[in-house]
Amino acid sequence: MNITLSQAEAVIAAARARAEERGLAVALAVVDAGGNLVAFARADGANLITIDTAIGKAFTAVSIGGDSGDLTPAIQPGGPLFGTGLVLAGARSLVPYGGGVLIRVDGRVIGALGVSGAPGSDDDHRIAAAATAA
Amino acid sequence: MNITLSQAEAVIAAARARAEERGLAVALAVVDAGGNLVAFARADGANLITIDTAIGKAFTAVSIGGDSGDLTPAIQPGGPLFGTGLVLAGARSLVPYGGGVLIRVDGRVIGALGVSGAPGSDDDHRIAAAATAA
Amino acid sequence: MNITLSQAEAVIAAARARAEERGLAVALAVVDAGGNLVAFARADGANLITIDTAIGKAFTAVSIGGDSGDLTPAIQPGGPLFGTGLVLAGARSLVPYGGGVLIRVDGRVIGALGVSGAPGSDDDHRIAAAATAA
Amino acid sequence: MNITLSQAEAVIAAARARAEERGLAVALAVVDAGGNLVAFARADGANLITIDTAIGKAFTAVSIGGDSGDLTPAIQPGGPLFGTGLVLAGARSLVPYGGGVLIRVDGRVIGALGVSGAPGSDDDHRIAAAATAA
Repeated sequence: MNITLSQAEAVIAAARARAEERGLAVALAVVDAGGNLVAFARADGANLITIDTAIGKAFTAVSIGGDSGDLTPAIQPGGPLFGTGLVLAGARSLVPYGGGVLIRVDGRVIGALGVSGAPGSDDDHRIAAAATAA
Repeated sequence: MNITLSQAEAVIAAARARAEERGLAVALAVVDAGGNLVAFARADGANLITIDTAIGKAFTAVSIGGDSGDLTPAIQPGGPLFGTGLVLAGARSLVPYGGGVLIRVDGRVIGALGVSGAPGSDDDHRIAAAATAA
Repeated sequence: MNITLSQAEAVIAAARARAEERGLAVALAVVDAGGNLVAFARADGANLITIDTAIGKAFTAVSIGGDSGDLTPAIQPGGPLFGTGLVLAGARSLVPYGGGVLIRVDGRVIGALGVSGAPGSDDDHRIAAAATAA
Repeated sequence: MNITLSQAEAVIAAARARAEERGLAVALAVVDAGGNLVAFARADGANLITIDTAIGKAFTAVSIGGDSGDLTPAIQPGGPLFGTGLVLAGARSLVPYGGGVLIRVDGRVIGALGVSGAPGSDDDHRIAAAATAA
């Protein structure tokens, strides 16, 4: 089952409300369960880098079946994926930092939301997690 | 001057209303004057190919300062761009077919809309032209 | 709904039997409804080019929601996609030639089969169509 | 000498049996001595990321003439390949983690198997090593 455009827009609206409350200009991307873009919105003032990172975080979440930030410990020195970092390869970029979160309905993954642009990826993650939980 | 997210969303909403009136499932992309993605929406049922082609048409329009379909005659035999065709290379793809239209405010280009998914690129263009004129 | 590995392997086995009957060495690729690779087999003696073209034809079929060969008339002189040709960009290549065919269950697309390596893409298509109809 | 499709499928079947015994959903890729894909199977439920990593691990093994995991120490701080990490660039990705193992016949390399999807790359390696030894 794949996310619909209406569902994707509801998730983006929820994330946007949270970002705006905190005065943050972020990019927001929703991909479906196959990792393909469904909806996207970039707030005025969000940096250009946020385009690929937001889409990439959402892609990474569906690619690994978890939060994109789950990869962050693994890329540290001594970690099993040490040396792996941000590789911007368009819409299918691996982005091992917080902000990509799965979207589920009745426990099944239907897509993912990627958030990019907050001062830290922890903030990106918080926005994404709150919006997808709602 | 660049398009704002609010303006981009208004353009997408206008294009979407036109596509839905005609029962068409299309992807809609707005890029800013720098060719960078601002907003995107893919209707349920629109083919996957429409993702890159919608974004690419919008990128092509700002890249050439005109309609993406302006390139179609040029790629025909004898034309100056003969042999150039659709190259899907992610968000910066050249798509020399109708459906990418500039968005202007007071005559200045602030971005472009790309539409993909109608039966023919003429239909994509009509939707794009009507939405950006509004 | 997405194709399972068992279904993908059954489709590949059916296509392979048909290719072997005719003494053809082909590559066979099955992608799911999101365009992501599920199963692949390259017969001994199939050219290296068949790897990307088989996967690309399957990807193209799900991308356009039809046979990959449906694009062939459109890329001819005077056609709406004139100038578009084979662009090998890895697993997400657009391959506008016969041999990519949708796989359906009860009318719903669950993936696609791509065949490459026969003398002509008509033969690739025939193998793909027979295998997916079964 | 290159691996045949029959040999590749036997290696994949052996690896799959081991993964299924342990309840693991993995992707399995076999490339020939030239690093080109011969056979591939992705178990139901294996994450999308396993497609590129399984193929990449097999490619890495033939590229370096050893286990893909041989590169892991080299990418640590002070190592000669420090800073090199996973770069997912399609079928020719360098993946410096365990799970890619050479396939030999009478001591000669005829290809490699890549495994991805187990909880750790040690597990991927164990499955790959057992299957290629058989």
